[in-house]
Amino acid sequence: MESEPDSTGNRNGLVIPKNHRKLHLLKVDHLYHLALDTEKDDLEKMFGDVRFVCFGGQPSRMEKFSALVARELNIDDHEMDGDRPKNYAAGTDRYSIHKVGPVLSVSHGIGIPSLSVVFNEIIKLVHYAKCKDVEFFRIGTCGGLGLEPGTVVVTEKAVDGEMNPYYKLAVLGKPVQRLAKVDQTLLESLLRCSEPDDDFKTVKGTTFCSDDFYEGQARLDGAFCEYEEEDKMKFLQELRNKGVCNIEMESLGFLAMCHYAGVKGLISKICIYFT
Amino acid sequence: MESEPDSTGNRNGLVIPKNHRKLHLLKVDHLYHLALDTEKDDLEKMFGDVRFVCFGGQPSRMEKFSALVARELNIDDHEMDGDRPKNYAAGTDRYSIHKVGPVLSVSHGIGIPSLSVVFNEIIKLVHYAKCKDVEFFRIGTCGGLGLEPGTVVVTEKAVDGEMNPYYKLAVLGKPVQRLAKVDQTLLESLLRCSEPDDDFKTVKGTTFCSDDFYEGQARLDGAFCEYEEEDKMKFLQELRNKGVCNIEMESLGFLAMCHYAGVKGLISKICIYFT
Repeated sequence: MESEPDSTGNRNGLVIPKNHRKLHLLKVDHLYHLALDTEKDDLEKMFGDVRFVCFGGQPSRMEKFSALVARELNIDDHEMDGDRPKNYAAGTDRYSIHKVGPVLSVSHGIGIPSLSVVFNEIIKLVHYAKCKDVEFFRIGTCGGLGLEPGTVVVTEKAVDGEMNPYYKLAVLGKPVQRLAKVDQTLLESLLRCSEPDDDFKTVKGTTFCSDDFYEGQARLDGAFCEYEEEDKMKFLQELRNKGVCNIEMESLGFLAMCHYAGVKGLISKICIYFT
Repeated sequence: MESEPDSTGNRNGLVIPKNHRKLHLLKVDHLYHLALDTEKDDLEKMFGDVRFVCFGGQPSRMEKFSALVARELNIDDHEMDGDRPKNYAAGTDRYSIHKVGPVLSVSHGIGIPSLSVVFNEIIKLVHYAKCKDVEFFRIGTCGGLGLEPGTVVVTEKAVDGEMNPYYKLAVLGKPVQRLAKVDQTLLESLLRCSEPDDDFKTVKGTTFCSDDFYEGQARLDGAFCEYEEEDKMKFLQELRNKGVCNIEMESLGFLAMCHYAGVKGLISKICIYFT
């Protein structure tokens, strides 16, 4: 007999999508943007042992990350396509998926809408694959505020371009807000991985999640910019005063969707220089 | 002597970015996400004859579109990379750019944030390249409402997930709204291209621009879905009653950014089946 779902709706470490009742009425579920489906692909056989899903923007970076995972974990039995790790979403060029042992590496493109498409399909994938105790991570680079380039920022709070801590979307024409809540246990356990002899600092802080790379992040070199350098500097100082450590474009949606799905999720990013 | 700018800020058919004063103080302008810059690349020589910029979601589709343009316009002197049309943004996998004669084909990924990054950089590209009388088009597929699959919808109005006709973004932490205004001259001239013996219909109408593919478009097969089929059908009927012909994820930002940049822009999309 199936056990009762926990407070997140999940059961025995399995991911049960909020929409599982309607999903299980489908004859075939097409993960359209991954070119996978529940008929032609044996998702449990392909992905059943996945424990960690790592998301990042660019396909090339996630392929390299996957190769790094293979070296670090000494795993050499993962599937290859010639001399490159196999891309399981090779039937499309929307997103990419690589797998090495328990680690799935997924590209999500730029911005929350692009992330939300692949996030929905990855939640369904780990459900159909019956992955247990799965954790989601977002990795990559970001702009740092008042931090040395190379510093790793672990997000303890994410806010939108107006400092709201929730992800807004419209469902059936009506506005909906979803809180971007960080899993504290996962946050603390990741911070404990930092070691005194690391040649980089690890900090936790607020991540400013913008929907735009240029004006949204107060840059002076976009096609549009109706403010001056002093306005930019004043704005960035205001962000620092409010605890913002870094800036990127997906954190808010990522954490809100993880929380809403009942999946543990965390963001850890390397700062690159921010002017 | 330079002529005066017109009401859009542009001059003699050239595109003058709103931010041109600050841009011209830069020693080098890096179009980061295209892997092009004003120092290593002679943008005027590479792109000076561009008249039409066509945007679409997927790199592979835009490469195929570029090959179609070459066949239709009988142009065979465009640059190749082996047996494929050259990708001028090959130094990155964020976006792609192909060029055949006066037609630039650009991929923008999924959603307005992804589009806004490449849009800013393409505005700067056509400025530095001194392109004249340039027009922007967004092409591709969309969900159709009450239309035969294959119908071409030309957008005369775009609205967001709550039916607002403007693109919202946050600049320096403050909300900003930009009207998504369609260029009527371009709209009429495109509609005149439709011919009585076309084997597809061409219609104009309102495009519903969602920030999410699943819940944002009332789909029943996402990971999240807290409504039922009758709610979906009622919502889609409401959209039809308000003149909505099709659904996609970038139209609002595209038209608002074209209007704000003073560039003529239009969206023409082929409906695929919508359940």
